[in-house]
Amino acid sequence: MARGLNRVTLVGTLTQDPELRYTAGGLAVMELNLAGTEFITDEQGQTREVPWYHRAKLLGKSAEFWGDNLKAGMALFVDGRLEYRTWEQEGQKKSSLEIRAERIEVLALEGKRGTVTVTDARGQERLRGGLNLVMLVGNLTRDPEVRYTPQGTAVARLGLAVNERYTSRQGAEQERTHYIEAQAWRELAEYAGELRKGEGAFFMGRLVNDSWVAQDGTKRYVTRVELVRLERLARGTVQSGGDGS
Amino acid sequence: MARGLNRVTLVGTLTQDPELRYTAGGLAVMELNLAGTEFITDEQGQTREVPWYHRAKLLGKSAEFWGDNLKAGMALFVDGRLEYRTWEQEGQKKSSLEIRAERIEVLALEGKRGTVTVTDARGQERLRGGLNLVMLVGNLTRDPEVRYTPQGTAVARLGLAVNERYTSRQGAEQERTHYIEAQAWRELAEYAGELRKGEGAFFMGRLVNDSWVAQDGTKRYVTRVELVRLERLARGTVQSGGDGS
Repeated sequence: MARGLNRVTLVGTLTQDPELRYTAGGLAVMELNLAGTEFITDEQGQTREVPWYHRAKLLGKSAEFWGDNLKAGMALFVDGRLEYRTWEQEGQKKSSLEIRAERIEVLALEGKRGTVTVTDARGQERLRGGLNLVMLVGNLTRDPEVRYTPQGTAVARLGLAVNERYTSRQGAEQERTHYIEAQAWRELAEYAGELRKGEGAFFMGRLVNDSWVAQDGTKRYVTRVELVRLERLARGTVQSGGDGS
Repeated sequence: MARGLNRVTLVGTLTQDPELRYTAGGLAVMELNLAGTEFITDEQGQTREVPWYHRAKLLGKSAEFWGDNLKAGMALFVDGRLEYRTWEQEGQKKSSLEIRAERIEVLALEGKRGTVTVTDARGQERLRGGLNLVMLVGNLTRDPEVRYTPQGTAVARLGLAVNERYTSRQGAEQERTHYIEAQAWRELAEYAGELRKGEGAFFMGRLVNDSWVAQDGTKRYVTRVELVRLERLARGTVQSGGDGS
């Protein structure tokens, strides 16, 4: 397995006042609901402003540090990682992909030109020209499948297993794996189609939430990475990465 | 002082075979000479392909791990940080800004469409569409100065002090500061002009090497960050950042 790299960086505004709460085990938890837009230029040179909404979790001392000083409308820099969680619900295995914030900074918006935030349909402030950047290194969980839209545009779905090694509070070396879904379009999708299950890859893109109605009529949600860059790791180096010294 | 964030990510090709050497103290050192291009779109919608050349240092176990397996022409993913160094030479204080690689991956280029690398005038392979991304959080070392080119384009020079805390091999808490120069153009330069010495800031941009002939006739070099994004941290939160838990 490639040594995992798991990094998410967001700049956006808080859509709600975050609340500090505690788990039954006494862990401080704060949920940050962030909104921003990105300016995306397509192949035809046309720029669209695409909104995003993401929820990040701040835990422990960091959450307590910020306490109740964070308010709706504030602009935040959030740096953290993607966290894959699984649980059982009515006998069914469920999973989710969350953003775990590792550091945050409050940004000052005074002095910025133009329209800095827009108010959305729910009355929440959304930061224009936010930042939504994901970088991952891991291994493909399956052969990527390439399909074509009725207009002939190639789209590929990819799964990445990102390995995480950490030392537990008891000092034991632990390992866990985060499973992350991604999507690529056009030329990048065609390139993805040449990759194979097990190969190491570097993903760079933005985090998007997608929803659809499943065959049983229930609404389903998925958080995935919309790729802007995809690199394949050379075979033979995949086992490694080399530890920082 | 804002808790420092110091991150550089490069994707480029090796222009030379790197050599593993050892310092007098027995530390393994490997210098990675990387080259790439970026496609930069200006306000007029015109895209230019801009080449870059950077040298990154890999130290210790990581350097030994890669040994002599890295060859000129290979594409690498390099993740690391900027390191500010000072020394004395003939009674004068000298300084440099280096890239310290913390992890590298060898990338496979097979299956990529179009021209993946170009051969430069010195016969070295340069990766087209490389990646050159710097993210920093620190404090401004001076009031940014805004000037105007004869064509009326605003350009600002900024200095950032990035704080680093680490634990020495003896277990002692250490602190050091990296001094990083940056440059902003146009609207971003005007915005930079409103910031003041001591303020916390988030810098995002690309690393460039610049050279000029000084008044004494000697050639001078500087490595700095060409900003694509500049955010000011809110006052009152600058002291902190909040530790990861």
